[in-house]
Amino acid sequence: MPGLLARVYVTPKRGILDPQGKTVEQSLHVLGFDEVSDVTVGKYIEMRLGGASREAADARVRQMCERLLANGVIEDYRVELVADRS
Amino acid sequence: MPGLLARVYVTPKRGILDPQGKTVEQSLHVLGFDEVSDVTVGKYIEMRLGGASREAADARVRQMCERLLANGVIEDYRVELVADRS
Repeated sequence: MPGLLARVYVTPKRGILDPQGKTVEQSLHVLGFDEVSDVTVGKYIEMRLGGASREAADARVRQMCERLLANGVIEDYRVELVADRS
Repeated sequence: MPGLLARVYVTPKRGILDPQGKTVEQSLHVLGFDEVSDVTVGKYIEMRLGGASREAADARVRQMCERLLANGVIEDYRVELVADRS
C-alpha cells in the first residue's frame, strides 16, 4: 500500500489572544500593507506515514494532535491526508 | 467587491536543516508513533484583505512574504486566495 502524506494545520482558537498574529499585522501596517486585517499565525506540519489505511492514519494523526502537536485549550487543528507521490 | 481571505504556507526549503521538525519527529517516536517520518514544521498564516482584485491581492501578498512573512534564504512560501465568506 503506498504511503500517505499528512498535512496538519494548527490555528489559534477564535477569541483566543494571538499575540504573534497581532505583531505580524502591526508590522505589515508599518510596511504599508494597510489592507490587511485579522491576521492569525499558526503551525503547518507535514509528515510521511507508513502504509496504513486512510481511516487508521487519520485516527493516528488525530491522536498525535491531541497528545503533542496542538494544545487543545487554545488551539484548533485540521488534518488532511494525501497520497505520497515522492 | 467582496474581500478575500489569504492563506500563506511558509515551509523550510528542502535540504535545509529543520530542527523543529526533527524534534517533533523524535517526540512522536517516543510517544509510540513509529510510522512517522520526514516531519517538517512551518507556519500557516491567515489574513483578511480589503476589496482588491484577485491578481492585485496575490501580488501584494507575495510582497508581504518577501518582505516579512518568509525568510527567502531558508523558507519557501505558497499563497492561496479564497473569497471571504465571514
